[in-house]
Amino acid sequence: MGRKKLVMVPGPTNVPDSVMQAMIKPMISHRGPEFRALYESLTESMKYLFQTDGDVYVLTVSGTGGVECVVGNTVNPGDKVLIPVFGLFSERLREAVVRRGGRPVELALRWGAAPTSDQIREVLEKEKNVKALAVVYNETSTGVTVRDLPEIGEIAKENDLLFIVDAVSILGGDELPVDKWGVDICVTASQKCIACPPGLALFSVSSKAWETIEKTRRPFYFDMVKMREFSERKETPFTPAVPLFFALDEALRIIREEGLEERFKRHKLCAQAFYDAVEALGLPVFPDREFRSNTVIAFKKSANINVGQVRRIMNEKYDVTVSGGAGKLRENMFRIGCMGVISETETLLTINALENALAEIGYRFERGAGLEAARRRFHS
Amino acid sequence: MGRKKLVMVPGPTNVPDSVMQAMIKPMISHRGPEFRALYESLTESMKYLFQTDGDVYVLTVSGTGGVECVVGNTVNPGDKVLIPVFGLFSERLREAVVRRGGRPVELALRWGAAPTSDQIREVLEKEKNVKALAVVYNETSTGVTVRDLPEIGEIAKENDLLFIVDAVSILGGDELPVDKWGVDICVTASQKCIACPPGLALFSVSSKAWETIEKTRRPFYFDMVKMREFSERKETPFTPAVPLFFALDEALRIIREEGLEERFKRHKLCAQAFYDAVEALGLPVFPDREFRSNTVIAFKKSANINVGQVRRIMNEKYDVTVSGGAGKLRENMFRIGCMGVISETETLLTINALENALAEIGYRFERGAGLEAARRRFHS
Repeated sequence: MGRKKLVMVPGPTNVPDSVMQAMIKPMISHRGPEFRALYESLTESMKYLFQTDGDVYVLTVSGTGGVECVVGNTVNPGDKVLIPVFGLFSERLREAVVRRGGRPVELALRWGAAPTSDQIREVLEKEKNVKALAVVYNETSTGVTVRDLPEIGEIAKENDLLFIVDAVSILGGDELPVDKWGVDICVTASQKCIACPPGLALFSVSSKAWETIEKTRRPFYFDMVKMREFSERKETPFTPAVPLFFALDEALRIIREEGLEERFKRHKLCAQAFYDAVEALGLPVFPDREFRSNTVIAFKKSANINVGQVRRIMNEKYDVTVSGGAGKLRENMFRIGCMGVISETETLLTINALENALAEIGYRFERGAGLEAARRRFHS
Repeated sequence: MGRKKLVMVPGPTNVPDSVMQAMIKPMISHRGPEFRALYESLTESMKYLFQTDGDVYVLTVSGTGGVECVVGNTVNPGDKVLIPVFGLFSERLREAVVRRGGRPVELALRWGAAPTSDQIREVLEKEKNVKALAVVYNETSTGVTVRDLPEIGEIAKENDLLFIVDAVSILGGDELPVDKWGVDICVTASQKCIACPPGLALFSVSSKAWETIEKTRRPFYFDMVKMREFSERKETPFTPAVPLFFALDEALRIIREEGLEERFKRHKLCAQAFYDAVEALGLPVFPDREFRSNTVIAFKKSANINVGQVRRIMNEKYDVTVSGGAGKLRENMFRIGCMGVISETETLLTINALENALAEIGYRFERGAGLEAARRRFHS
């Protein structure tokens, strides 16, 4: 049929046509007036996205590179950083701190749970000389969102800790006003809730963060002081991925047009429809109820389901790509991206493909129950 | 008129339409079969480009990030690295080594010159315990190519030094058979002679290089051992800039179709035409004659020329963008990219725009002399 596939993995996500088309604008010099106009527009839109009056930057690098950039600008060898670890991406964050020579103070939690403000407080009562608190706001590997983030931000402030937030799989899909919540450095990536192709990391930087950054022995490519210097002439220190910058500009224009509040509501509604549907199909939602993400839907298989087989049928026969579990949960879990271009349409198509594939492998359930549960959520 | 601008800066360069169009293929998951097919095709083409049987990788990052990646995988704190410094980009390479805690042994040369094998030998006779030799093959800031690179490779081998080559502004435009010349790690970028948009760095890695890399405390995002691990399943460790990967695949297909030998000949011929033309206009070529680059054409202004004004007229009135000097030479030099999509057409249009702009500001020269000199080079 030549139909487009629905990419429903937790990033990269489906990208609007106008964002794709923005990439093929004729090449421009990144040291000329056309680029400076683009830079200015991006800066304004990013301040809206992060809900900040602070500084914002884009770097040509994937989300993990963005996280390493943040660590490289804030952590010196020997620095103590408190990190709640509750999934693959918080493990990565810890690993980036270790590679840097920092000393992670780990708050280890069960996968499926999220750190609470009480737990953070408890660690800080015992640990002295902690410099920073680094939190993965949304664990892509477990579908968990740290719902206590505002309270955790308060604690960081009380204890004069630098508050670092990895918002890669959530910014633009759920609430995160960085100034209001006291986030000093926030990092996200282009290919998740922003619905732009992958290849760019986005940052917000508070004035408190600058004090730390200036005192850090920074890596070269990731140097934020250089980014600040070049931002004065509306340029990036090093050659940017210009087509992706054009795409990001259009993706952020779409976000401003819709408005953050509307966008967050839409993500939440679709997420609820997904959760209703998988429960109606008898598949257990993975995260604890109070930590369920609105952007990554993670649920377990039932005993006789072969995750790989179901995913293959969904992809090959019904043109819907979803993910399995991350890391050690690869064969035990499904993960669906509920990000960016997500509405009743994508939600119902994905659930329908899942039902069809489950029926095909002989899983026993009430046919249509998932679809009906989701439909009811959208029209009740 | 809606005519496309000619981007004749030393990168990013003009990009063929088919390469631009490749970017807007529908998004795919980077953990699925479509991506693995793309990865396999890229690997094969890169081995052709680097002329290597060793390993090759692509990373989502700009060229400078690529250089930092190489340094991060090979230099431990305290390591001595011999670096000839003869322009802005060799300064950057030295800086990346310093930031990493390495100890650069600097061979400082006049801008416009290139290191010779004799000079390298001389330094190595005095300096002991040098671990690596890192050379910028083509200095984008001065239009200089290190013509002794094969001999310098011999010296690296004799002295058992790791031989690192920054080929950002030259690979794909001039001869560089990495296996034959004994290059252990070579890095280049997508937006120069490969004629792809910016955002990707490309690497070749020899088996000797692996011995060093495995013993290095590597950064996280830049970790080449991770790249090697993931390459076994034809994936990248972290989310790649998929549209740029599609574009690179098409750009490399074009290179293979033309053939490297033809491509190098074409670059050389156009470069010679440029040099003939600027000399006919009375503008002094910047680099020493024996080091002239075939990919970056650098020449000085004459006394009464305002470089910025000439560039503005060329850009606004004749739709040709060229660069001024780099760093301290900003107002004293012109630089033209002779990269990728470069033929008689682009060469003559650029020279003609230059002549028109020079005439307009009252510079005295024989009108048409540049164009005629270039024309003669193409048809003699």
